[in-house]
Amino acid sequence: MKIVVDAMGGDNAPEEIVKGAVLSLEKANDFSVVLTGDEQKIRACLADCKYDAARVEVVHCTEIITNDDAPTVAIRQKKDSSLVVALKMLKEEEDVQGLVSAGSTGAVLTGALLRVGRIRGITRPAVCPALPTAKGGKVLLIDAGANAECKAVNLAHFAIMGTAYAKVSGVKDPRVGLVTNGTEEHKGDPLHQEAHELLKTLPGIRFVGNIEGRDIMSGDVDVAVCDGFSGNIALKTTEGTASAVMKIIKANILSSLRAKIGYALFMKKAFEKIKKTMDYSQYGGAVLLGIEKVIVKSHGSSKAASICASVLQAREAAANGLIKDIKELLAGVDLEGIGAEQ
Amino acid sequence: MKIVVDAMGGDNAPEEIVKGAVLSLEKANDFSVVLTGDEQKIRACLADCKYDAARVEVVHCTEIITNDDAPTVAIRQKKDSSLVVALKMLKEEEDVQGLVSAGSTGAVLTGALLRVGRIRGITRPAVCPALPTAKGGKVLLIDAGANAECKAVNLAHFAIMGTAYAKVSGVKDPRVGLVTNGTEEHKGDPLHQEAHELLKTLPGIRFVGNIEGRDIMSGDVDVAVCDGFSGNIALKTTEGTASAVMKIIKANILSSLRAKIGYALFMKKAFEKIKKTMDYSQYGGAVLLGIEKVIVKSHGSSKAASICASVLQAREAAANGLIKDIKELLAGVDLEGIGAEQ
Repeated sequence: MKIVVDAMGGDNAPEEIVKGAVLSLEKANDFSVVLTGDEQKIRACLADCKYDAARVEVVHCTEIITNDDAPTVAIRQKKDSSLVVALKMLKEEEDVQGLVSAGSTGAVLTGALLRVGRIRGITRPAVCPALPTAKGGKVLLIDAGANAECKAVNLAHFAIMGTAYAKVSGVKDPRVGLVTNGTEEHKGDPLHQEAHELLKTLPGIRFVGNIEGRDIMSGDVDVAVCDGFSGNIALKTTEGTASAVMKIIKANILSSLRAKIGYALFMKKAFEKIKKTMDYSQYGGAVLLGIEKVIVKSHGSSKAASICASVLQAREAAANGLIKDIKELLAGVDLEGIGAEQ
Repeated sequence: MKIVVDAMGGDNAPEEIVKGAVLSLEKANDFSVVLTGDEQKIRACLADCKYDAARVEVVHCTEIITNDDAPTVAIRQKKDSSLVVALKMLKEEEDVQGLVSAGSTGAVLTGALLRVGRIRGITRPAVCPALPTAKGGKVLLIDAGANAECKAVNLAHFAIMGTAYAKVSGVKDPRVGLVTNGTEEHKGDPLHQEAHELLKTLPGIRFVGNIEGRDIMSGDVDVAVCDGFSGNIALKTTEGTASAVMKIIKANILSSLRAKIGYALFMKKAFEKIKKTMDYSQYGGAVLLGIEKVIVKSHGSSKAASICASVLQAREAAANGLIKDIKELLAGVDLEGIGAEQ
């Protein structure tokens, strides 16, 4: 199996991307990587790394899609960009089973739709990151921002895709919650009320009911289903809150000599570890679900460690049959009548 | 000035409510409190406190509205409940200028609408709590959950009311952000796009543009305007994340002997202080904005300290002319055409 990596996407491209991709090869030996981008620059980065040359392929291309590019225009016009070339390989080559990019989210999403295509039956692919929980595990948030406007059937698809992804990630019987403004069944706007009713009927989905924002990271659900608008707000609120809490803690520590001494002597290591736990980019990236092949969108600021994690994440999802599992779950439900109106 | 306190609302009523109300009298001497509820029980609680009897009034009533009551039914039928009696006093007695309740949010909101009434021009009152920020200040989140469905004009009203409240709380020229799924102007669903355009036109409002979930607690805005659905998710996500972060930190500390020693010797106090900073109920409650008088909804689990803070918050808002300020800001804008369609 090959995983193709957009070597030019992200704030730290190509150095950290190349380093991370090569690093991933040490963690498993059943796959190889393809790096797309400026061959000369990529080779220069590779020169600093130790790796098995037989497992690394470089495909030269001349263009780069940046955050300033309008996604649809860029995907259509920059045909020789590292992202479009990677997407083309993903679409056309059977042994290329996953793609990793730290480039513009909009471009990756648009490119996935236009160049790779949706899974039949899924009208709206979704972005699905994993967050740490208070109980030490992870929770999948879907949709974290691909669709600002959703219908109930989209939320049902998110539940199906999130369940399939949780399963291939090792969760046996994933618990699915619907994120609304209250746990009672009747809570929410009409969209979420309709989605609640729909989720109750889905075979193969362990729907545990409505959950609130405070329950997302509690560890009581494995999949938190959101519309893309409030899901994006929830995701970014977790980031903002975690960062604010760490800053408040630091300010408190630095304001007391006693605590400052304690920190320096005993707790610095613990805090570094905590920061790592909270930094979800360490786990890899957000999976784009609903596309015909596995795509992992790594954070724009990704360094080698998180690119490495993203490549392994793509490999694991592909090896465990993510796309097949989504299709099977989807085949078991009858959303035709509801989906048809889209 | 009098502040009326629903002595029977909340998990710790009436003990902690009475204690908190009486405690607030020590912090300022220009007001008195009225306690509504079971007189015998209230007097028993008062017997344990030291206070100036001239500044405490007890109004006996026989009923209690609980979280199990349907709000509209309860407000209509339980006419001798501690909440309805308090609302009646707030409405009818000029010197009663604020109300505090730790009872059911739904009942307080419904009761405020039915028994006290809206400010003319405001179609949808909103819930407005204050959160701590990374820079050490506070940010107001409005609407945090009163309205699961909103129109753009409601969001404009939230910006106006939030600005007025930030001002009476001591912020000179409050910065207002609109919480959406991206900072770019065109981001958001049609509701938020329309609201963005509207906010740009409001005189007296310092609109700084769209903000993301991660910016709410950054300290870069004083008022974060949300629709009540995503605002509720954002609020509860901050709670859940803060709690998860603290648990993850504790688990990390307890897993290392070195860190455990450091914690016990040096950092326990700092952590207790941090927990207090993060616990926004310590600041008092969420203000209900858009009602003809000042109402503070304290957290259901409020203890004496947060009831005390809520009473002082109501007193401060009333003393600083919150309602007058909202009306003045509202008079300066022309939302008639937009509001009329409601």
